[in-house]
This record gives sequence, C-alpha cells and structure tokens, in this order.
Amino acid sequence: MTTLRTAVIGATGIVGQQFLVALSGHPWFQLEGLVASERSAGKPYREALRDSSGAWRWHVAEPPPPEFLDLPVTSLDAFVPTHYDVIFSAVESDLARELEPRFGAVRPVITTSSAFRMEEDVPLLVPGINHDHAALVRHQQARRGWKGFIVPLPNCTTTGLAITLKPLLDQFGIRFVVMTSLQALSGAGRSPGVAALDILDNVIPYIPREEEKVQRETQKILGTFAGEGVQPACFAVSCTCTRVNVLDGHTEAVFVALERPARLEEVREALAQYDGGLSSLGLPTAPPELIRVHDDPFRPQPRLDRDTHQGMTTVVGRLRPDPALENGIKYVLVSHNTKMGAARGAVLTAELLACQGLVRSNR
Amino acid sequence: MTTLRTAVIGATGIVGQQFLVALSGHPWFQLEGLVASERSAGKPYREALRDSSGAWRWHVAEPPPPEFLDLPVTSLDAFVPTHYDVIFSAVESDLARELEPRFGAVRPVITTSSAFRMEEDVPLLVPGINHDHAALVRHQQARRGWKGFIVPLPNCTTTGLAITLKPLLDQFGIRFVVMTSLQALSGAGRSPGVAALDILDNVIPYIPREEEKVQRETQKILGTFAGEGVQPACFAVSCTCTRVNVLDGHTEAVFVALERPARLEEVREALAQYDGGLSSLGLPTAPPELIRVHDDPFRPQPRLDRDTHQGMTTVVGRLRPDPALENGIKYVLVSHNTKMGAARGAVLTAELLACQGLVRSNR
Amino acid sequence: MTTLRTAVIGATGIVGQQFLVALSGHPWFQLEGLVASERSAGKPYREALRDSSGAWRWHVAEPPPPEFLDLPVTSLDAFVPTHYDVIFSAVESDLARELEPRFGAVRPVITTSSAFRMEEDVPLLVPGINHDHAALVRHQQARRGWKGFIVPLPNCTTTGLAITLKPLLDQFGIRFVVMTSLQALSGAGRSPGVAALDILDNVIPYIPREEEKVQRETQKILGTFAGEGVQPACFAVSCTCTRVNVLDGHTEAVFVALERPARLEEVREALAQYDGGLSSLGLPTAPPELIRVHDDPFRPQPRLDRDTHQGMTTVVGRLRPDPALENGIKYVLVSHNTKMGAARGAVLTAELLACQGLVRSNR
Amino acid sequence: MTTLRTAVIGATGIVGQQFLVALSGHPWFQLEGLVASERSAGKPYREALRDSSGAWRWHVAEPPPPEFLDLPVTSLDAFVPTHYDVIFSAVESDLARELEPRFGAVRPVITTSSAFRMEEDVPLLVPGINHDHAALVRHQQARRGWKGFIVPLPNCTTTGLAITLKPLLDQFGIRFVVMTSLQALSGAGRSPGVAALDILDNVIPYIPREEEKVQRETQKILGTFAGEGVQPACFAVSCTCTRVNVLDGHTEAVFVALERPARLEEVREALAQYDGGLSSLGLPTAPPELIRVHDDPFRPQPRLDRDTHQGMTTVVGRLRPDPALENGIKYVLVSHNTKMGAARGAVLTAELLACQGLVRSNR
Repeated sequence: MTTLRTAVIGATGIVGQQFLVALSGHPWFQLEGLVASERSAGKPYREALRDSSGAWRWHVAEPPPPEFLDLPVTSLDAFVPTHYDVIFSAVESDLARELEPRFGAVRPVITTSSAFRMEEDVPLLVPGINHDHAALVRHQQARRGWKGFIVPLPNCTTTGLAITLKPLLDQFGIRFVVMTSLQALSGAGRSPGVAALDILDNVIPYIPREEEKVQRETQKILGTFAGEGVQPACFAVSCTCTRVNVLDGHTEAVFVALERPARLEEVREALAQYDGGLSSLGLPTAPPELIRVHDDPFRPQPRLDRDTHQGMTTVVGRLRPDPALENGIKYVLVSHNTKMGAARGAVLTAELLACQGLVRSNR
Repeated sequence: MTTLRTAVIGATGIVGQQFLVALSGHPWFQLEGLVASERSAGKPYREALRDSSGAWRWHVAEPPPPEFLDLPVTSLDAFVPTHYDVIFSAVESDLARELEPRFGAVRPVITTSSAFRMEEDVPLLVPGINHDHAALVRHQQARRGWKGFIVPLPNCTTTGLAITLKPLLDQFGIRFVVMTSLQALSGAGRSPGVAALDILDNVIPYIPREEEKVQRETQKILGTFAGEGVQPACFAVSCTCTRVNVLDGHTEAVFVALERPARLEEVREALAQYDGGLSSLGLPTAPPELIRVHDDPFRPQPRLDRDTHQGMTTVVGRLRPDPALENGIKYVLVSHNTKMGAARGAVLTAELLACQGLVRSNR
Repeated sequence: MTTLRTAVIGATGIVGQQFLVALSGHPWFQLEGLVASERSAGKPYREALRDSSGAWRWHVAEPPPPEFLDLPVTSLDAFVPTHYDVIFSAVESDLARELEPRFGAVRPVITTSSAFRMEEDVPLLVPGINHDHAALVRHQQARRGWKGFIVPLPNCTTTGLAITLKPLLDQFGIRFVVMTSLQALSGAGRSPGVAALDILDNVIPYIPREEEKVQRETQKILGTFAGEGVQPACFAVSCTCTRVNVLDGHTEAVFVALERPARLEEVREALAQYDGGLSSLGLPTAPPELIRVHDDPFRPQPRLDRDTHQGMTTVVGRLRPDPALENGIKYVLVSHNTKMGAARGAVLTAELLACQGLVRSNR
Repeated sequence: MTTLRTAVIGATGIVGQQFLVALSGHPWFQLEGLVASERSAGKPYREALRDSSGAWRWHVAEPPPPEFLDLPVTSLDAFVPTHYDVIFSAVESDLARELEPRFGAVRPVITTSSAFRMEEDVPLLVPGINHDHAALVRHQQARRGWKGFIVPLPNCTTTGLAITLKPLLDQFGIRFVVMTSLQALSGAGRSPGVAALDILDNVIPYIPREEEKVQRETQKILGTFAGEGVQPACFAVSCTCTRVNVLDGHTEAVFVALERPARLEEVREALAQYDGGLSSLGLPTAPPELIRVHDDPFRPQPRLDRDTHQGMTTVVGRLRPDPALENGIKYVLVSHNTKMGAARGAVLTAELLACQGLVRSNR
C-alpha cells in the first residue's frame, strides 16, 4: 500500500497531541500536515507548543514523537486539504461545524468532535462493531455532492459500552440497559477542564449533555444500516454519568436486561470471543483482543487496566447475573477515553476505511 | 426523663471514637462506661488513645470531647453490663457475635456490627422508616429469655438507599431497584482499610459481600412487621458497589422501576416531604429534614453534602424520569456513612427506642 | 462599643464568601454592604450567587449565613463608601489597585489583595506580631491627604512563617531562614485555579512570584517601625514554594539559623508561650493560642490541624535541632491559608485596628 | 560475556516484582532463581502471585514478564546460592540481616535493604557517583573470609540527592545542604504502606528514621574511599522528609551552600554535563543522561518526569541562586524511588560490578 498523506487539524491541543503519538511510526499514514491557529502558524511544531511564558505545553504522558517536532505548523487559512489523503480533526464542536464540511467536501475527515454525529447520512463507526455502516459514506457523498466525507467517533463514554453490548445484542438480544459511569478527568479536556478544588475528596454527579449522547449514540452504533441512514437499535439506554478523581479511563457499571435467558458462561464467552471480524483485517492499530474479560473480582480498575493493548481493549469484569432484571446480567467495564475513545480510535477507524477502499491515495 | 447510663464497647477504635463525639453533651444518654481491649484497661481514655510510640491516635475530624478524656477504660472482663441502661457496641462482627448476646441478655445493645442483622427476631431499625419493627424486640426477648435485646444498624450503604426508597414504596410501589454505589474510604475502616497506593488515580469495582448485604437489608428494612419476624419487601435490589477516593460520604446512583406511573413533581414531593413521623417525636439527634432534595444538577456531591444537618440527612439530586424502565425514575443520593450510617445513627436509634419505652432507666 | 457598619467589596467571589462567613454574628462589625460586579447589582445576595445556568455557586465549606442572603448587592458605581465605617476588600490585585485608593481616601480598607503591600507608607499588619506598625497608618493619611487608609494582609504563605519566626527573632535573633512550602489548592483561587489533571498524583514545584513575596513580606512584617516606614528585618528568607493536592492549609518545612544558641526546650517554650499581647485585647476573633506546638512527630498535618481554633492558630511540630546550620533549629508548620491567611485574618486585623482607635464609628 | 545466572530473593513482593521487570530481556543477567516464602515454594511463579482468595497480586505498573511466569518458586531452605552468579535481595531489613550474610559468604548479593548500609566494610555504591568505592568489596571479603559480598543500595530518598550533589561537590565544594522531600507512596511499601484515609487531602510531615538515613548515607556515598572504609564527606545534610499523595517519584527541594562562588550557568553545566564515567562503560541499564536539567520553571513534576529514561535519570529544575546562603544555590529534583532508587538501580549496580570484574561467571 502506498502511504497516505495525512494532516491533523488542531495539532497543538491535547487531542491533537494524542494524534501525533498515535500516528508516530504508522505504516500506512504519513503525517505531513499540522494545522493550528494563527498564533502557531509558520513555527516549527516544537516552538508552537510553547506558551507565552516560553514554557513547553505538552500534555500527553508519552513523549512527543521527535520526527514531528520540526514540521512547520500551517494556519487554517493556508491549509490545502487536497494535498492530503486523509484528515484527522481534533477541534472543538463549534469550529468543527464550520471547518469539517469544508474539508469533507474534498477529502475524508475522521473527527473526534460531536458536531455531525447524529446527522442522518453520517455513520458513527466503531471498528469491530458496525463495519457495514461505513457504506453510509457513499450516500453522504451522493447527497452532499462531496468527494470526501465526515466520519466522527462516538463520545468516549459510548465507545466501551457499545463494544460490550454488541456481542450481547447479537447472541441474546437486549431489552434495556442501565449504566452508571465513573468518568476520568481527561474526558473533560483542559480548558478549563475540572478544577482540582472541585474534585478532590469528591464526586461530581453530572456531566452536561453526556447522558443523552450515550443513549442516542449507542442506539445508532448498534442500529441497522438501511441504505440512506441507520435504523437505531430499539432498546433503551438509561445512564447516570459522574466524574471521579481519575486521570484516564472511564469505568462503567452496566446492567443489561437480555431478550433471552443466557447462562453466565455463555455471556462470558460471547464477550471474550467477540472480534467482529477485526483481527482478520490486519489493521495496524487493532488490538489483539477487542474485549478482555477478568475473573478477578477486583478488576477492572482504571489505573491498572486502561492501558491494556495500548488502551485499545475494553476490559470487562465482575460479570454476574442481575437479580433485579428478567434475563439480567451485570458487569463493570473500563475503556480508555483518550485512546480507543479518541485519537487512537480515530486512527483505527481510518485504517478500517482504508481497508474498505474509502480512504485511499490520491496520487 | 432521667438520664440513661450509657456504655460504649470498643471505645478506642474509630467507630468508638465517633460514638464519643455523638454522645458528647447528649441530653438523655450519660456516657459513663468506656470498654476496650486488655491493652487499654485501667488507663484514662486519654492515655488509651496512645499507640506504642506514644503518639495519640484520634481518627475523627471532630476533636475528642474533653469530658470523656479522663474516664477510665474498662476491660471486657471487668465490664458489668447491668451498671448501664443502654450499651452501644462498636466492635467488629467476629467479636460482636460473641459479646453482644452476653450483654443483650441483660441490657439493650445497639450495634453497628453486621453479626445479627439478618436473624429472624432482630429488627433492622432505621429511624423515620420502620418504627413498627421495633416491636420485634419483644419477641426477641421472649424467644431468647432475655431482659435486654440486640438492635443492629444496617450497613452504611443500605441506610441512604432504604430512606429514599421508603416514600417511593409508600406512594407509588416499587417493582425493582438498580443501584451503583461510589463508596467512601472510611466505610472500609482503618485496619488495614484501603491502601493509598490502591485507590489514588483509581476506582476499585468490588467490595466483598457488600452487594448482598444491601439487597437483603433493604428488603428487610422496607418489609412488613409480622409479629415474629419481618416479611421482606418483595422487590429486587441489584447493585454494583465500588470504592472511590473520597474520605466520607457514600454516593449512590439509583434507578427505580415504580409500580405505578408518577409525575416527577409528585416523586420530588414524596421525597422532600417525607418524615416518617420522626420530627413529632422530639428526638435530640433527629435532623430537621430526613431527606433534602436539590434541584441544582451538580448536587449532591459527597464533600459538599455529606455534613448536611450533622450528617443525618440523606441528600438527593438529579431526580429525573428513567427512559429505560417502565414507570422509571432515577436519582443520585449522598449519605454520610459514618454519621447517619454509623455512630450518630445508632444514637438516634437508641433515642427512638427510648421514646418507645424499650430503652429505659433501671435505677 | 457601637457596632461598626461594614461592607465587603467582591462579595460574591470565594474570598468574599469567606468574609461573609467570618462576619456572621460578629459582635462589632455589622455587615450591611455587599458590593459586586454590575452583573449581580440589584439582586439579593442569594440570587447573585447563581450562575448563568441557574445553579448556586457557593464555594465555601461552611453554609452561607442566612442573615445575609437577602441583602441587596450593590454595584461598584452605586457604592458609597462613606455609608460604612470599615470596608473589607476581596478583589483581585488589578482591580484593587484602582478601587482601594478611592475607598481608602475616605474610610479604612482592609484588603486581602497584594496591590499595596510593599508601599512604604502601608503597614503589613499581623495581629499578635507587629501591632506597633499600625501607627504607620497615620503617616499614610498625612502623606496622602486621606481620612481613611489601606491595610493589606500579607500573602497567605507568609502569615504562618512570620508568626512562628517572631518569638524566635525576639528571643534568639535570626541569621537566615530556609523554607519549603507545600501549598494548598485554595491558595490558587478558582479562576481558573489548579486543574485537577495537573495536580492528581503530582506536585507542582513553582508558584509564580510567591517566593519573592514571602521573602519581602516576612522582612517587612518582622521589621522595625520607623515613623515614616518600616525598616525591614535584615535576615534573608529563601524559599521554594510548591503546590500539593490538598484543599486547604499550607504546610511549611522551616529551617532557621538563630543568632544565639538556644536549647530546644527554650525554643519550644518561646513558640508555645508566644502571644504578642493578643489575648489581653479581647478581640472577638483572636484564637486562644496564636501558636500550638505538637510533640507527636506525625503532626502537624494540614487536614487534621488547619482548623485549629477556627483556622486562626498556626500549628507547629517536628521541632528539632538542625545539624547543618550553626545554632540551627527546624520545624514544620501548618497555617490555614483561607482563614488566618485571608478573610478571618482580615477581620481580626480590623478588630485590632478598632481596638487601637484607627477603625471607629462615624455615626 | 557469558550470561550470569541470577536469583531474586523475595521474588513475590513488590520490590521482587520490580526486579523481574528490570531483569526481563537483560543481556547479561539470566534470571533463573525465584526465592520466596514457604507458602509459595514449589509453585510456578504465576501461581505464587495468587492470594488466598485466588486473586492475582501483581503490584507493578508494567505487566509481568511472561518468560518468568512458569519458573518454579524455591523456598529459602531449598535455595542453593552457589547455583547462581549474582543474587538480588528484595527482602525487609530484619530478614536481610539474617539471610544476606549467609548468601554473601559465597556469592555477590546486591540488596535494596538497609541492613548493612552503614557497616564499615560495605560500600554504598551509586553508579556514576562513586565507582572507586567498589574496591571496598575486596576488603569486605578479606575481613569476613567471604567469597561473595554484600553491596546495598542507598535509601531511595538519598539516591537523587547524592547524584545531584556529586558534580557540585567536585567543582565548587559544599559547605552544607538543607533539603525537604515530598515523598511518594510507593516508598512506604505495601504492608501496610500508607492508608488512603491518612493521606487524601493531606501531607504527613514525618517518615520514621528517614532523615537520619539521608544524612548519613549521603555523606558516605560522597565520602572518600580509604582502603578499609570510607571517610564520610564532611558537609552536613539537614532534611525534613514528608509524604505526599503521589504514587511514584520523590520530589526534593534542595538548598546548597557551596564552598566557592559559582555562576548559575556554571552550576547548570556542572549538573547537565555530569556523567561520572558512566556512559563510557556501556552498561545496558545506564541512562543516556544521568541528570537532566529543565529550564521550564514548572518542572520537574513527579508524574511528568519520574519515568525519564525508564526512571533512571534524576531530573532537576528551578535552579537559581539562594539569597539566604553564602554561595548558595537551590533547585528541585525528581527521582524515581522504585526504579533508579530500587530494583533497576540495583541491576545497574550489578552491571557496574560485573564491568569491574567483581560479579562474574562461576561456570
């Protein structure tokens, strides 16, 4: 495969930095374009990371990939999307709403922003879960007269939930889902993010708009592709989303009422064996396990399990019958909100689209 | 009312210390007996708090009540229960199983231990919730040939749940309950308690035996008194209990399927107005509100709300319909696990029993 | 004493809220004026605390004093300083630089801002430490042609250090001081304050401009009043100021090279007995102990000791000889940065000035 | 070089686990012996990690090296030291005092325990700092009639301090050192370690015996080898050691009075360039930088800097003149207490000894 020329929009922010780490040494995607605000334009990336006091603002645990430090940063105005084969967007929703259609008109845009997630002709793609939804991109192109397209990632709280529900839906059917999340700080971003004074020795029981997103996005991801859109899955998802004092890794306590009775061992197997056809595709970023099931009742824990297979695996534990629900089961999951749930998940999605021929070289 | 002579068993431990704080200046209960291990016996309480290095081990946020510092500590062997009118027990379950029947044979024992909670002739009393269950004490005395009795408090995670479910059960009926707890560190005690290395930047998704306790105890508390026992409430309670890095105050995300449809405003009123006949009794430790309902969606938070009315009020927020459950509602509660959920709750329970004539002076 | 009519500038911010708590039930100061930004003007205080989403933004652990909730909030433009006898200012330095001279021209202004701390004719007053510096106010009035004056509090990190150095300076002389602070989050305020993502599982080794402030302010507080100014104390103070994940209470590890040899017991007595003439004045907010000395080597700890005597006492422990310094001693202190170090300290300062006749009724 | 047969004593504890990680894939040391208590003996390592409830107790962030999971665990009684070329000891001091002379009589023992650190014929070796002290091993062997020897690592708080003081001592001389440490939780181990209830929202100002160790060990490490012992460096080291709520990485605020004046830039160069002859030896675990100097004043931070070069580099920042001390400088350092300060540092020390011919194959 020819390498694909790649750009990141919003390259100096925290999600942008995560994209750089995710693309370092990537065998298919050659990162050549770093796009950021006017303030950074023209500087080498290394310098664009300095704040007004001259201090370096690199917010990701992994060190910055040295090969990108001297790439020049381009302004949005000077950015020419057709010079690239695939564009990763790491900007906030307001800016995304304006920019992404501009770039999507000519090139594939994979984005972590929420701006277009619920539009009818936009697939909400999760690798291993709903590969067939990718075909909605053709309809998006036809309807909008675009050569490119927009494919957003779901909300980071949705990702682990949808991944673990998929094998249950396939094998046993789902009547409804109740979930309480204990979400990490990094999910709130950095500007301003969560104040230390608010979360130390505390839990914050509310994350604005999060619960609605999880409900609707889960139904869309697990829905049925129907040519010009997706018919949402018809089971309800009720959640309470809370913030806890954890750096990375969302923990979710999930209670599922299945359609059909299932022995616990069958459910365990369904989860542990689930692959969704992912491993056969040979995608470079795909984890060897999509779901790992722990039998140790003290797992999963966000600090111990979030980095499983580079944060691309959803880790499940405490699987047990639910005494309150007919055909009920319950479990706890941990999913890395800034890896599978953001930049690395976006790169995996682009790999899937490349494999499907929807992202390709324009040389 | 004559003051009642009072003893605390396990007076030097953390729960014992909380009893001292709860009994300081109490208008009815005169704390005269402090019972602890052989190691402390004979010393003034002040000295019994010193560890082997000579340092003072007072673990409670409130300062130690000065009036008790010079009381002598009695050993278990030298303790004469009939010198007291009421005995508060703060010992671990293993020791409780041995000691409490001994003392209960002659005097009322109010205990925070779990040893006897599920015995048929033992009421699981929560002030404001099930005053009529107290009559089971008469049966306990008759059956065991005792002059005293044992009344245990429920598990600290059960208390806030049972309190908030009671008005819902009364007015709308309950089909089932799903709950995820985010429990505070102090619920795990101190020896050894939770290691800082395990909980910093983390969540622990399992607390051994906690979920079973919450299910069974809730059903018993909200059950029907039937002369020689309690007929458990027939709705199921499913929970996932987790530990978070919070000092005090259990947070619980509760999802309830009601029997009958209820408008949200009716549910809010049912919770906010609920009193269970508590305020009319004039108990010294009773909070002016048994349940407080917040409309600010960012509440309740454990650090901000746990100390409401000295930790005796269960604070509810985020009340909203549950889209996944028929007649479903959901909410978040915060309950102070070491106040209403332990020593202060035990003192309130003793007040209730005194008011009912079951705890009384033997002079 | 006639009660003194009192106003708080910046009443809705976190320091302003602390002033309300400190002034609730005060026997001398009658809080009648609450001044805040245009956005809050005209509303009752209760409503002015709501943010744009309608949620209540009360940031202080103590509940808001009910007697102030219905006071109307005045805008800066509408505020008439001569309607009050004393004005507490809780605004940021930039705004302080503009406003405080305006109000100080006609009335006493006690402020937590740093704007005027180092001006020659402005005393940096710490109750119990340098009462004689208050006379500098007369010179300030004469020089500026003012009827009122400005008296600022020192930086919250300086307060505990200066208090504990004073008895050492008096009795043994000081050659130099080395100090490392472990400062609480609340010292950084709320907008934006410290991000949880930055401080969880971490220490931040730098607080801009803090070290210079501590050095210069300590020298000024412990300096000699000289009619038209203060001759700074001539010993050097070197510090490294760090931020740790603690809500309230600054911890400081202090190393002092004394002028003269001192036995440890003498140093202990000097600290524990020191009162600076404070207790004889009968000031309502003055703590019964200005300095408490712990012999337990595990104390002081910020969470256990910050609230000693309502946060007005500096708590010292780990007092021991310093093997590296000639006539060296070392100790650890905890001082409550938002109580003695801010609003309550300002109220105590105003009490001292009232006692000295510098703050008085204008009726 | 022939690979050296290697054993770890105390292999199932947290330090033992760190040794396994440090030895995985090591080019010189072939880990063949895992020694633990009777309880684990005979089991494969994988099974020996399970506690009584069957749950797996792996405490280190890195996953357990798969190649060691099936090695059988040997009991202390069955362990034959002469089957190995080098023995790493990860046991507590009490046990070390008994075991290490037994093994040291026949083979080189590199240990993290404090038992023998201050014995006259025992070198306290820090790679890059005092290679010449290794020769003391010959004297130890002669004096004790041993074929092997004991070489302990210093206390983990001493390591970073001694490393950064060495270039200052060499170039400018040192009169005295004042240091305050902010130490991580992992330094306290796990049984019981620090309780979460004690450290959340808190600082603990005392670590028993730590300050004395740092003073004496620093003087020994930086002392002069004198044939039959080490003449301690003659400058005093005064410290206050505190515990903060950080997982790994000790932070130290250091103040140094130099013998001779030094420009800041010279000091910076002395630190940044210092290598101590380490890099020329080609030791597999040696970091490319022994000391890294940051100019960003917000560094070093333990969470961001502890893992620099796999935790083997001491990271320095905030270098500035000290206004209180003659020829004074001050800085902040971060050193990884369980990597360079423990198992990985022990492996590096063994590499150095191998390079010096003191650890060698017995085949």
